[in-house]
Order: sequence, then structure tokens, then C-alpha cells
Amino acid sequence: MKKVFLATCLLLSAAAAPAQQAIWGVPTLISPEVNPDNTVTFRLNAPAARNVEVTGDFLPTQKITTPFGEFDAPGTAQLVRNDAGLWEYTTSALAPELYSYTFIVDSLKINDPSNVYMIRDVGSVTNIFMIPGDRASLYAVHDVPHGTVSRQWYDSPTLGMKRRLSVYTPAGYESGDRRYPVFYLLHGMGGDEEAWLALGRAAQILDNMIAAGKAEPMIVVMTNGNASQEAAPGETQYGLLPPTTQLPKTKDGSFEQAFPDVVSFIDANYRTIADKSHRAIAGLSMGGFHTRHISKEYPDMFDYVGLFSAAIRMGEDPVDSPVYQNVDEKLKIQFEKQPKLYWIAIGDTDFLYDNNREYRRYLDEHGYPYTYYETPEGHIWKNWRIYLTEFLPQLFK
Amino acid sequence: MKKVFLATCLLLSAAAAPAQQAIWGVPTLISPEVNPDNTVTFRLNAPAARNVEVTGDFLPTQKITTPFGEFDAPGTAQLVRNDAGLWEYTTSALAPELYSYTFIVDSLKINDPSNVYMIRDVGSVTNIFMIPGDRASLYAVHDVPHGTVSRQWYDSPTLGMKRRLSVYTPAGYESGDRRYPVFYLLHGMGGDEEAWLALGRAAQILDNMIAAGKAEPMIVVMTNGNASQEAAPGETQYGLLPPTTQLPKTKDGSFEQAFPDVVSFIDANYRTIADKSHRAIAGLSMGGFHTRHISKEYPDMFDYVGLFSAAIRMGEDPVDSPVYQNVDEKLKIQFEKQPKLYWIAIGDTDFLYDNNREYRRYLDEHGYPYTYYETPEGHIWKNWRIYLTEFLPQLFK
Repeated sequence: MKKVFLATCLLLSAAAAPAQQAIWGVPTLISPEVNPDNTVTFRLNAPAARNVEVTGDFLPTQKITTPFGEFDAPGTAQLVRNDAGLWEYTTSALAPELYSYTFIVDSLKINDPSNVYMIRDVGSVTNIFMIPGDRASLYAVHDVPHGTVSRQWYDSPTLGMKRRLSVYTPAGYESGDRRYPVFYLLHGMGGDEEAWLALGRAAQILDNMIAAGKAEPMIVVMTNGNASQEAAPGETQYGLLPPTTQLPKTKDGSFEQAFPDVVSFIDANYRTIADKSHRAIAGLSMGGFHTRHISKEYPDMFDYVGLFSAAIRMGEDPVDSPVYQNVDEKLKIQFEKQPKLYWIAIGDTDFLYDNNREYRRYLDEHGYPYTYYETPEGHIWKNWRIYLTEFLPQLFK
Repeated sequence: MKKVFLATCLLLSAAAAPAQQAIWGVPTLISPEVNPDNTVTFRLNAPAARNVEVTGDFLPTQKITTPFGEFDAPGTAQLVRNDAGLWEYTTSALAPELYSYTFIVDSLKINDPSNVYMIRDVGSVTNIFMIPGDRASLYAVHDVPHGTVSRQWYDSPTLGMKRRLSVYTPAGYESGDRRYPVFYLLHGMGGDEEAWLALGRAAQILDNMIAAGKAEPMIVVMTNGNASQEAAPGETQYGLLPPTTQLPKTKDGSFEQAFPDVVSFIDANYRTIADKSHRAIAGLSMGGFHTRHISKEYPDMFDYVGLFSAAIRMGEDPVDSPVYQNVDEKLKIQFEKQPKLYWIAIGDTDFLYDNNREYRRYLDEHGYPYTYYETPEGHIWKNWRIYLTEFLPQLFK
């Protein structure tokens, strides 16, 4: 019997496991392989393919012309086939970063079957890999005390819904009785309460920066900013629907008006320090839009405000909500109350760059103090991770 | 400016977004589509492909002959190409269940690019879809009070490691002061602390069964049973390594010996009822092996014991650990202390069926009471979800 048992186990470990037993296959091909010199080798076993390319954010972009103008499109690189039908491509040495990619096989975009690490960005799923070092080492898991990440539901009386959020509590929270400041961290259009954890590496960044003494231990609350949506796609009562950016009530004032429901829930259920000087809020893109409005609607709530590549449209408020009315007066009140930090960050090729410059000009004209941080590149998660690592050390000091 | 802004937003919403802005693409093709009659249509846009098949656990299996014998291999079905290069296949009406599948394009196994819902089983990633109804409705999210799911790290002095586990706390836990019973739920070979949540739909099953009054509100702890591994693949300090079933220290007694570290951590950090009659333990496959040994090593710890398709090898203990010595005497002590439930479940085509029958015979011979539950089919997650839904109502009564 022992022999049969072992043989069966071996069989079950093989790549092609029978359907009537659990599929325990593991990839037999290594792809991508990060080489010691920080070059990366991609491999795909596809004897029947006529053409295999890799596309990803580690490749130089290429100019494309569209009806909307000229843009930098993702670069592609050709994999080369050997006699056995194995396709391969090795990059030049890459700078430390979290990168994403997909393969293109005879015009069909696919994920790398050898790489189980994938992240969803709204409705796109890409494989990822990491080149360690420099700032990117903050995105990796290290042997440091780890916080807890919880997916939790709260009641929003304002929206009349149960809604899901993600909460990071710092290492030691559960076993101690200390109270902590709270940072509310908001996602962009089409994102959800998973985005900062998956794409933003928020838990790893917090673990590492808190362990290094670069950030205060804090609770971080990642909400779902789509006021019509209970939770991330697949986590709602509506089943496994395709994700969409075309959600109603994303910028109609609903989320901003319902935001105190979140703060009340967190203050009631966590050991928070429930005052302005121990609350921060920041968001990327649409989350920056939300942050700007929430922080001015509730000028006694947040002492730290971060606009990351914020979707700001001066004088072009999207719908007729009280949230978007009397903006000048509300900003005046907010700045009279002197928030400790009003931080604006954007990439120099971001499509929202001009809008942000216009907003900075407005703040300058009114003498409202802010801190500005500019990076290369555009409206991308690489920048939002960088902004998070720059914003955190400034909080709760 | 408004026009440019809107145009840019539209562009960013399109499937092919430029690299220098965030990739916000959403699938434009619906696949799979669950039709009102419970047939399912799969679609793939692959004009250059010569052959497209779908393989999944909803298709009738096919016999394959291997050096280890004859097995039921996953069935496949052919997609048919239309003139535009769109491939399509519609199933017959399917029974309610959570199903998984992949495409095979010219012999290359790929995930469905139109379906962002995927689950990893050790080193295989498959797409999923659900047919609602019957027992499978327990696997879906409904408008009921939801528990919290936390990923948390604990210290294991016995293993000398910080390790990760998943904890489900029932709805109302955070806002109340009530104490709860605890159910420890263990995964199989190559699995980890994510397996019961992703493949087992444990959080949905618990939410739904607790809301329906079919299960007591309880804390559920999902450990990582690989004693050499800190956490699930990608969540450790060793980076994004390929998952493997070839982990050291999986069945050498280490996990069993270190299990009291987990229980101590949970009792110290959660509002538990810390006695035998309020603790349950169950596991699938290797987790059933662990459950059998843990429950006998600590006979005062658990009143409810569940062996789901357990890897039991009577008299063939894998290594020379004190855990696997004096098994007869230890089982005698365990059963003298009369656990309230000793539950054994297995599928009638499971490769461990004979081993389990042999173990039941042993229990019968010794007059050790147990409850037996048999299902059709084999060593598959469908059965483990069923066993969870059958086991839960029997706990903490």
C-alpha cells in the first residue's frame, strides 16, 4: 500500500493532475527569472505559437497616435523560440521596482502560466515581479513585525448599505492597549478597498517603514470609494460580475457625504485617537478628488491631507451636489483652521498635471500653504507607491 | 480643458491604456456568461489560433492511462470559431456549484483573459464561475451580516518563527464583548493559510450558515500547516518564489508540536471560550493527517474533530517523531476522554478511500465512536466545501 500511496502522491504533484483529485500542479518552467545582475528572463513553452511577445512597464514605451493625441504606449519585446518550442527573452538590467507584464501570443494577451503572482487593476490582470533594492525594498516582505490586514464590513446609514473596507492595524495592536492615529487611504476610479493592498503594497510599506522608525505606528483604513458598490468585485451579493469603471455615484458627492459613517465606525471599533491631529486622509486620482472634498467638508476632521495625482477640476464640479458648492468658502475655512500638512504630489507627464498646476496656482493666490512633490512619469501605481512612502513619514509628528 | 479631460478619461477606460497612465482596462468580451438556463458560454477572441478548448471540472472526465494506473482526467470541449476569429462554446445546463476552468489554445494552457476571477490551488491558477442555487448558494455572498477576515502574524516559539494565519471573526465580534468558540481549520499538502478562504469559500459559508442559524457564531482560525514556511507564497521574506508541494517539515511532527503556540496566541488575542468543549479542529488531506495527530497529542484541547479526506496511513508513520509514536495509547486516551464528535468524511473515488476505510475498521475494532459521511467523487475542493457545510452545524451544540 505504501508504494501505491507514494506513487499516487507523486502523480498528484505532477503538472497534469486528474480531475477527480485536487489539482496540485506546480509550474515546472521558471518564468520570470530574476537573474543576479537584475536582468530578467521570461519563458513560455508554446511550440505551436508563431509569435510571442512580452509587454510590461519595464520596457521603454513607444509612441502611438490616437484620435485623442499622441501617447506613450507600453513597450513590447520579442521572445525567441528554440528548437523545442520554448520561447525566451532576457531584459537588460532593471532598476529596483515592482513591475507588471503580460505575454502576447499570436495577438492574444495572456498571463504567464508559470507565474502565479498576479494583480488586478480594475479589470486588467497582470503578472508581477520585483527587483529588490532601494525604495522598492519597502514593497517586499521582510523579517520585521507585521501588522494585521482585515477585510471588514461596516454599516453606512447615509448610503443605506453594508459596505466593505480594509483595515491595517500595526504590529502589537491586538496584544496591547495603546491608542493609535488613523490614516484614511483612498483609491482611484474603478478601484476598490483591495487596490492599495494589492497594487500599492500598502501593508508591506507600512510594516517596513514602521519597523524602521520612519513612520509612526498607525491604523490605516482603505475604503471603497464607489458609493454605489458594496465591496470589491466578486465580494458583493451581485456575484462574479466583470469589474467596470462605469460605476454610478463615484463623483456625485455621495461618498464624501457618507464619509463620517466610516470615521464613526472606525472610532467605535478600534482604539483610535479620535481627534483632528491624529487623523490623515489621502487618495490617488479619484481618491485625491474625494480627499480634497472630504477634507474641506469636514475641516475639523483631518490635520494631514494628501492629494496623489488628484483628479482636480477647478470650477468644473461634476454634478449638482452640495459637496461641490461654495468650494471657495469651504477651502477658506479649511485653511483658516490650519491643517498641519496639505501635500500635493504628481508626475510630470500625468494627464492631470495641468489641472494640478492650476490648483496650486489657486492655493498660492489665496495664500493657502501646501507642500508640493513632483516625480517623473505619469498616472501610475509606481508613483502612488512612491507618494505613500513620502507621505507617511510626515504624519502624526 | 473639460473636453481634453473627458477624452483622456475615455481613453484611459479603453482596453488598451497607455503605459504612462494607469492601466484601467476592463474586459470588453463577456466570458464566461452564465445563461438563465444554467448553461454557460465561454468566449475567446483569438483570430490567429488554430484550436481552442476549454477544460474544467464541469465537463465529464475522460479516462487516461498513466504509469501509475488509469485515472479520470479533466474533460475538454472544443470552442468553435466564427468568421471574426471569436471562439465560443456553450455547455449543457450545469448543476449549482463553484466551477473552475482554463482554456487550451494550440496546446498552451491559459487563463481566460475576460475573467478576472481566478483562484490559486498551490501552483495552479484557474478561472472560476458559479452556478447559484442549492448548497452552492452557501458559497456566494449574500445580503447578510458579514464576518471579518484578518491576515495576522503570530509568534511560534516552538518553531522559532513569526508565522501568518487567517482569522474569521463573526459579524458583531468587533462591536460586542461576547466570547466565542474557536474552530481551527487546516489545509492540505502545498496549501497555506489562504486555501480555505479562496478555494473553500470559508468566509462566505460561515456568513451564510451563521446568518441562517445553521452554525453557531464562532471564530475560525486557518493556519499555515507547512512548518518550514512563514506564510503563503509571496507573503514571506523570500519573495515571489514559485509555490511548491515539496516543502520540508510538512509531516515530521513539527506542526503538531507547535500547534499549542497557535491556540495560545488565539486565546490571548481574541475573546475565546478557552476550553475543550468550545474548540473544534478539522482539516483536509494533509490537514486531516495533522488533525488526527494534534487531537490525540492534546486530548484535552478539542471536543470536535473532523477528518476531511484525511491522509491517514495506519502503521506507516512518516518519520521518527515522538508525535507518531505510541499512537495506539494516545488514541485510547483521546477516546477515553470522549470527544463530542469525531467526524470522518471522504469521497468514494478518493485515492485515500482505502486508507480511511482501514482507519474506520481500526476505530470500530477498538470501539471508538465516530460519525462517517461519504460522498461521491474524489479528492477535490467541491467535496471539502461540502464537508465544511456538513461539519459546521454539528459544532458547539
